[in-house]
Amino acid sequence: MSNRADFATSDQCMMVKSTPSQSSSTRIVSYAALHRFTARAFQQVGLSEADASTGADVLALTDAWGTFTHGTKSLRGYLRRLKAGGLRPEGKPRLAAEGPAWATVDGDSALAMITSTFAMQTAIAKARKCGIAYVGVRNSCHYGAAGCYAWQAAREGLIGLSMANDAPSVAGKVYVAQTRGEQIPNTWLFGADGKPTTDASGYPHIGALQPAAGHKGYGIALLIETLAGVLSGAAITRAVGSWMLGDGTQPTNHGAAFIAIDVNSMISAGKFIQRVESLVEEIHNAPRAESVDRIYVPGEMEWERYDRSMQEGIALPSDVVSSLEEAAKLSGLDLERELE
Amino acid sequence: MSNRADFATSDQCMMVKSTPSQSSSTRIVSYAALHRFTARAFQQVGLSEADASTGADVLALTDAWGTFTHGTKSLRGYLRRLKAGGLRPEGKPRLAAEGPAWATVDGDSALAMITSTFAMQTAIAKARKCGIAYVGVRNSCHYGAAGCYAWQAAREGLIGLSMANDAPSVAGKVYVAQTRGEQIPNTWLFGADGKPTTDASGYPHIGALQPAAGHKGYGIALLIETLAGVLSGAAITRAVGSWMLGDGTQPTNHGAAFIAIDVNSMISAGKFIQRVESLVEEIHNAPRAESVDRIYVPGEMEWERYDRSMQEGIALPSDVVSSLEEAAKLSGLDLERELE
Repeated sequence: MSNRADFATSDQCMMVKSTPSQSSSTRIVSYAALHRFTARAFQQVGLSEADASTGADVLALTDAWGTFTHGTKSLRGYLRRLKAGGLRPEGKPRLAAEGPAWATVDGDSALAMITSTFAMQTAIAKARKCGIAYVGVRNSCHYGAAGCYAWQAAREGLIGLSMANDAPSVAGKVYVAQTRGEQIPNTWLFGADGKPTTDASGYPHIGALQPAAGHKGYGIALLIETLAGVLSGAAITRAVGSWMLGDGTQPTNHGAAFIAIDVNSMISAGKFIQRVESLVEEIHNAPRAESVDRIYVPGEMEWERYDRSMQEGIALPSDVVSSLEEAAKLSGLDLERELE
Repeated sequence: MSNRADFATSDQCMMVKSTPSQSSSTRIVSYAALHRFTARAFQQVGLSEADASTGADVLALTDAWGTFTHGTKSLRGYLRRLKAGGLRPEGKPRLAAEGPAWATVDGDSALAMITSTFAMQTAIAKARKCGIAYVGVRNSCHYGAAGCYAWQAAREGLIGLSMANDAPSVAGKVYVAQTRGEQIPNTWLFGADGKPTTDASGYPHIGALQPAAGHKGYGIALLIETLAGVLSGAAITRAVGSWMLGDGTQPTNHGAAFIAIDVNSMISAGKFIQRVESLVEEIHNAPRAESVDRIYVPGEMEWERYDRSMQEGIALPSDVVSSLEEAAKLSGLDLERELE
């Protein structure tokens, strides 16, 4: 079992932050060009224009946030699955069952960005009527950055919660250390003996990710697995296929859960925003340790990077550029021409 | 800001586990006697029989779980506030606003166990109609162990989530270390300089609790503060009164949030339980590190202790016994006679 949720994005960004960003193959691209390339690549393997655009919305936004581990770097993996059939290019998520404030969505093995967007939109519509809504998803796949779907609710004035289960093979900091042959802190992985290790070389075949915060993180992981996997009817823990390492011709049956809360039903939007701003201001002005310049609230780093990305372009790290080159080959596109 | 949520209970228990339990003033009492004493103490300071019983239900259950930091140990503190007026003995929680799948409850400064039980019951009733429901609470106080309210939903076949905000003065392991004059691990507190410290002596006047899991825990704390404080209309962060150290004549205006999810609306109860049991079995049978005898799921330790408590009585640690002696004095009861 390894889950991700909305607040996972900051973590990924801290990794990116420590990555040297000016290697020879770092590349600055505009959001528009990255979005266009991504959408065209999806269309090349059979997605409709609308579905391809939805997929590109999520991946390009993620890169604009600077969360490069979960953005277009994964495009090649999705394209492989779309070509192999484990993801269905013509897949259409549908409501499998519903009630006033809940629904279950069958993802039909479509690209998870399409299914997840459909599910969150369903949650938003139901929350507007009832105050809160839960939508569980099954027959989905790796859905990228959880925060993208939380944001779909937030931009419409609702609180959004987004969570998914996954096979025990999550990408991220561990793989970066592996690639560089570096030791990792002993709080990241358990080794073959079930004890903390600084050796990431055998992962994911050997060892397991440690939960954040020990038993507390374990509890949260089980809560997410319950809402995203058990209740939605998706695969659970080891039954979830690995989207990166598993057989590309087979569905992974990831699960996900989306909860929307309509603030406006309960409190005036103005008052809610005022209260949130007062909380944020208190945190911003909290006493700081000596070497700390400022205190961020979750998402703040990402939206500052977003603004910079929109003004100056997105500075793609070299591993993302290499991955996009592969994605271009897989979809029969010329990366240079597309990113012009 | 310091929040607590359902999964906090295991943490508290791990602390209790490491506490030497056979000191001279440890005392074994039956659940029934502890419940009776607690209810009578509440009645002595003006609560109705029904309200007193609700309060005793929560506190005695918490002790039966072995979560002694959040059970009847707090009774003296609640009695003090009930006598001083910061908690209103005749307070009656009421629906301040509601919709199909949500409500806001004004706690009327009643004992928080009464308000929280009312709120969770409201969430359960609405979730049965809509699938999921959110109830926000304001004008409440310290509500004890979050898991008690989650359990109120679970015993009726629903998933329950329970969370609350609090002033930055949470009891627990830090105070135990203080009492014993022991150093704490450097992952628990920040000192006056905002950096990790092993010195708990000045807390809570100096320093602050570190969030679990660093920035991830910080994100979860903010989510809880938003659902329990911002959205419910309760006090936020430093505006929340300290129920232990603050002026007993003034309300603390704690907030809380309860979410109930009606599993039966979405999936047959039998199928859901089967899927949960399969998940639990997988975890129980996971490979273990050398020195690990068994792997627990959240709540499992507590319910095993509960069974033992019901058979053999509850082995109250000496600090709880001392606290009950004070509670008896505050309510004009004879502890020896009551616990017979």
